[in-house]
Amino acid sequence: MRMNVTQKLIKSHLLSGEMVSGREIGLKIDQTLTQDATGTMVMLELEAMGIERAQTEASAQYVDHNVIQVDNKNADDHLFLQSATRRFGLYYSRPGNGVSHPVHMQRLAVPGKTLLGSDSHTCANGCMGMLAMGAGGIDVAMAIAGEPIYIKMPQVWGVKLTGELPEWVSAKDVILEMLRRHDVKGGVGKIIEYYGPGLENLSAMDRHVIANMGAELGATTTVFPSDGEIRHFLKTQGREGDWVELLADEGAEYDLHEEINLSELEPLIALPSSPGNVVTVREVADEPIYQSYIGSSANPGYRDFAVASKIVEGNRVPDNVSFDINPTSRQLLTDLVKEGHIANLLTAGGRLHQAGCNGCIGMGQAPATHENSLRTTPRNFPGRSGTLEDKVFLCSPETAAASALAGKITDPRTLNMPYPRVHDPEEPTVDVKLLDEPIPLEEARKVELHKGPNIASIPDMDPLHDRLEVPVLLKMKDNISTDEILAGGARVLPYRSNLPEISKFAFEIVDPTYYKRAMEQRGAGGHAVVAGYNYGQGSSREHAALAPRYLGLRVALAKDFARIHWQNLVNFGILPVTFMNPEDYDALEQGDILVLENLKEKIRNGNEFMISVKNSNRRIPVQHALSPRQIEIMIEGGLINWVKKNNENAGNADVGEKVVCSACHGTGKQSDEEGWQYACTVCNGTGYVTPGDTTARVADVDATKRILD
Amino acid sequence: MRMNVTQKLIKSHLLSGEMVSGREIGLKIDQTLTQDATGTMVMLELEAMGIERAQTEASAQYVDHNVIQVDNKNADDHLFLQSATRRFGLYYSRPGNGVSHPVHMQRLAVPGKTLLGSDSHTCANGCMGMLAMGAGGIDVAMAIAGEPIYIKMPQVWGVKLTGELPEWVSAKDVILEMLRRHDVKGGVGKIIEYYGPGLENLSAMDRHVIANMGAELGATTTVFPSDGEIRHFLKTQGREGDWVELLADEGAEYDLHEEINLSELEPLIALPSSPGNVVTVREVADEPIYQSYIGSSANPGYRDFAVASKIVEGNRVPDNVSFDINPTSRQLLTDLVKEGHIANLLTAGGRLHQAGCNGCIGMGQAPATHENSLRTTPRNFPGRSGTLEDKVFLCSPETAAASALAGKITDPRTLNMPYPRVHDPEEPTVDVKLLDEPIPLEEARKVELHKGPNIASIPDMDPLHDRLEVPVLLKMKDNISTDEILAGGARVLPYRSNLPEISKFAFEIVDPTYYKRAMEQRGAGGHAVVAGYNYGQGSSREHAALAPRYLGLRVALAKDFARIHWQNLVNFGILPVTFMNPEDYDALEQGDILVLENLKEKIRNGNEFMISVKNSNRRIPVQHALSPRQIEIMIEGGLINWVKKNNENAGNADVGEKVVCSACHGTGKQSDEEGWQYACTVCNGTGYVTPGDTTARVADVDATKRILD
Repeated sequence: MRMNVTQKLIKSHLLSGEMVSGREIGLKIDQTLTQDATGTMVMLELEAMGIERAQTEASAQYVDHNVIQVDNKNADDHLFLQSATRRFGLYYSRPGNGVSHPVHMQRLAVPGKTLLGSDSHTCANGCMGMLAMGAGGIDVAMAIAGEPIYIKMPQVWGVKLTGELPEWVSAKDVILEMLRRHDVKGGVGKIIEYYGPGLENLSAMDRHVIANMGAELGATTTVFPSDGEIRHFLKTQGREGDWVELLADEGAEYDLHEEINLSELEPLIALPSSPGNVVTVREVADEPIYQSYIGSSANPGYRDFAVASKIVEGNRVPDNVSFDINPTSRQLLTDLVKEGHIANLLTAGGRLHQAGCNGCIGMGQAPATHENSLRTTPRNFPGRSGTLEDKVFLCSPETAAASALAGKITDPRTLNMPYPRVHDPEEPTVDVKLLDEPIPLEEARKVELHKGPNIASIPDMDPLHDRLEVPVLLKMKDNISTDEILAGGARVLPYRSNLPEISKFAFEIVDPTYYKRAMEQRGAGGHAVVAGYNYGQGSSREHAALAPRYLGLRVALAKDFARIHWQNLVNFGILPVTFMNPEDYDALEQGDILVLENLKEKIRNGNEFMISVKNSNRRIPVQHALSPRQIEIMIEGGLINWVKKNNENAGNADVGEKVVCSACHGTGKQSDEEGWQYACTVCNGTGYVTPGDTTARVADVDATKRILD
Repeated sequence: MRMNVTQKLIKSHLLSGEMVSGREIGLKIDQTLTQDATGTMVMLELEAMGIERAQTEASAQYVDHNVIQVDNKNADDHLFLQSATRRFGLYYSRPGNGVSHPVHMQRLAVPGKTLLGSDSHTCANGCMGMLAMGAGGIDVAMAIAGEPIYIKMPQVWGVKLTGELPEWVSAKDVILEMLRRHDVKGGVGKIIEYYGPGLENLSAMDRHVIANMGAELGATTTVFPSDGEIRHFLKTQGREGDWVELLADEGAEYDLHEEINLSELEPLIALPSSPGNVVTVREVADEPIYQSYIGSSANPGYRDFAVASKIVEGNRVPDNVSFDINPTSRQLLTDLVKEGHIANLLTAGGRLHQAGCNGCIGMGQAPATHENSLRTTPRNFPGRSGTLEDKVFLCSPETAAASALAGKITDPRTLNMPYPRVHDPEEPTVDVKLLDEPIPLEEARKVELHKGPNIASIPDMDPLHDRLEVPVLLKMKDNISTDEILAGGARVLPYRSNLPEISKFAFEIVDPTYYKRAMEQRGAGGHAVVAGYNYGQGSSREHAALAPRYLGLRVALAKDFARIHWQNLVNFGILPVTFMNPEDYDALEQGDILVLENLKEKIRNGNEFMISVKNSNRRIPVQHALSPRQIEIMIEGGLINWVKKNNENAGNADVGEKVVCSACHGTGKQSDEEGWQYACTVCNGTGYVTPGDTTARVADVDATKRILD
């Protein structure tokens, strides 16, 4: 079989299932990435599960989201995360090092490997010839513990790039073109693989731009080949030895086809308030702007800042424009300083911020009410900027800088200057000690977790009730994002390790009365919500499932779901079901009472069942998409309960009994009286054993061996 | 008379009163400075008073405090301030330009002039041979409107500097030595004037460091001569033409005397949580640290960052140290970038923040709970950092950088390296267009104020009641700071133009039940508070008076008051009285009911009167320090009411009637039917007239003329 890059990556990591689109597959995860906004919860989950040490090849914890520190909470979180990385054997990237995605690319990314990250833009490292996917925090916790990730085998969407980008057009315009064609759900259920001669003039960082915003198409991930350009990039990072070539076989096939002639592109821009609202810059030229924002994981590269610097050099932006410069990594900032670009940007009136995610996730730089903000960031969902009534546009650094200079939206091609073609420094700053490395196991075992006053345990959650009678507390439209379910930003994110506190913000943007109504209903059996298409798009934050769960959400009934949020709902024991007849959506109202009877039996016995509407006596056919494994997770009340139960069962094994290693799924024998630790003969790691489950995992062992071979 | 510099500055600006210490004097104000945290209220006051145009030689509005923008509020404020500067004819310094004090020094400071600023560190510009004083926002609003500032003539405290600073000891250690000797109230009622041969080796920015933290001694201000060093500084800023020499006369006398031999100083440090807790660094060496913080108006200079850069060059701070770099001005940051210092600091693990006040006023970089933070900032009052349970130390950049490198408090003299003597660049970056200049009056008249949703009018306030029967809601200890009365920081400051909202935070650190209890008492006649010595020390924020006033505070009874807060209390109609017998403090309890009868008559008829304690039948002798002018302000219920009333009276003048110009106090004739505008024959400005008050001001006119001559 002639394979494309995606198929090669999946095949080499397949632990269970078949590579048939729509079927569940289990994949071995080589690397993980967590950021601080999701990471504190992941570390609390590792602690709750009793994990001894990360079982991955490399797991890194980045601090990039909450680096403002307006009170003790952020700083306490940083110390907690640092202690947890030491305890569990992870890499730690301190605040100020920059955004996880470019830093991971610089320091840890390895072609041919899998990467799972608790950040929806984890896909950015697809630029390195990796299978890099965003997931819920608990999925990443499981991966750190050595568990596979289970996903539906996506379709592979081949996008052939031809031609060469014209002057004033850059990588951002390529992904905006994809969004213009396919909107925010065009990639759902698909892995996008770029190939073709157009790649030749796209640097590793250009590819990062395109892979990053694959998340905005709803794609499972984006994949690029590992070619000479990736070798060159790794060489500049002092890591040429990590390079392996990974190319599609000659004549490899794709499930879906697309072609973009780069030569035909022009500057594009996404209008407020969706990344899919793409038009040409020409169409909206001359709109006055309040802000021009350079940075974020969607435009992290040296060239993205350098081109802006060259555009504004020697001039000054008008006094009514806030020109915000957000460096994305310590290494790149150092180069931008050394090469004079930061001086240019400062002299032009730029506001230079700390390297990090910053305003991209609403941590600072919120625009003024009703004022236009042009950003090179990946997203412009309503309120994400921190300003409720915001008007955020997404564009390339060329367009943002040209517009800053003019004080109004400007097609950069209309500037009266030659196009400043900039290139990465041939010998960029490389800091091999940028990340703190994992400490040895013996030392790690002695590390105490450093818990500040705002870090609390995850409350117990009850298992699935067999009968639910729950009111619909919200009826929502299409494309509700996780930002609308639980906002990011400075008010909310600091409480992410404090579930009762953070839950007060749930659905606040959709309906500020939700929290109060949900709390009233909480003791009375909980509630349901109804939504349209693409429910839960956007950021991967698992609190968008965890907070409603804490408030009593039992059932989410939608036309369809965004992938990561669907996974999070399952992981935390909220039943996601879809309408078999989408028109039934119209007949449901807020306040309707849904009744679900014999629920355990129903979800075990098939994918389709009926929900009764108590007040109208209607019966609505729905379906769930749970795998057998997920059905058991749902019945337990979510993944934490499920792992806990497995750990409890593990305790029942007799010494000498045959058991399965949770780290690599190899089989061994129970080795001590305490009943849960043993030295695995396959991976030599330490895992958790599941007695009585040995046969079910034989296939896994084979798969593991195949990987190891 | 042989005059010192302070006397020369006062004499040349004296509009009323005599230069006898303790007597009220009225001073002409040449320049004003507002920052954004206090400036929105100043602009609202200008609007409420109906001001047409600033009457000063230069008034500048800086945006440096609230530049994080976690939601629309900061950004909306910036647009409001920008529109107000255009409306009222002020300079505007956009966010990112840096901290008001060094920027003012660079762009606008002129030796021999007076500067009034709504920021307690306004005294920093005393380094330029100016009389530069912090005041409440409303005092600055009055100054912008052309009114004099009234203060008690302070004592002049001559501090003779001899010798030369040893290696590893810098200007910060000089002011820490003053604090070690005299603590936080050692300067109350005094102007500190430095002189002597030790000045020769202190640059303009070194003097800024010393003048800045004069505020921490409680001094009215600090004054340095304008000598060759100031000429040199102005020359590097392209403003040599603004230089005038201003030296003490040979043999000039001082009221008080002090001498510091610079050669004998060693590195000093203020322990948590008062700038007066000063010890030698040696004494606390080896304490582990969480944070090292470089920047703020207390160490704003190029050399302060450059010396830190040279100390850490080629090394990396340990991974448990947050090394925060806070540039203080755009110009200086640009130079630090160009000279390679920023690259050094980044490579050493520094976190580079936007130029501004930042963590110094609790806007970011809050330390972790109970962890030691070393800062070059001026203040370490409890909670000011943003973390309630903080441990903030104040020290020089040398000590902060050495400690960052070692991960523990370190006397920089113990470093194994030669002392890196750095000097300012001979041709520093100068941006003559850094500030937006005032626009012409005709254009300004057309400007609409841009008011976001969080900017509200100042509520009406009632006049003084003739009988008060008020419970003591708080009894407080000595040295209560305005940070404790109304915290700064990211939670609080954004509401500074929204009085009902910001009042919820009043006295929160002292007693979180205060707000609720005050609101309960509000409709029942209000309440009183009791405090020890030095009540209201620290930041000048007028909200520390305005918020309690809104909540019904009528009387503040203390052993004594910090100057600026006392002024703010008077300005907003809260009666400040002191115990005649300090031991009466001990007899009062929270909950006691104070009764004040025939109040108006009593305060008009003398400085001393009795307060009855209802429940104990005790009578407590107290005194007030109000001038006749301030008594009338108090009776009206504060300065806004008083100005309003004057404006209403002004409206009663007939065309042709003789009136007084509020801008320069010259006399003119009512020129239009609407009754409040006229072209003044003395200053050619536009002021507000006060009919029937002409005789009282004749002296003022003479004084004004003397100035103009």
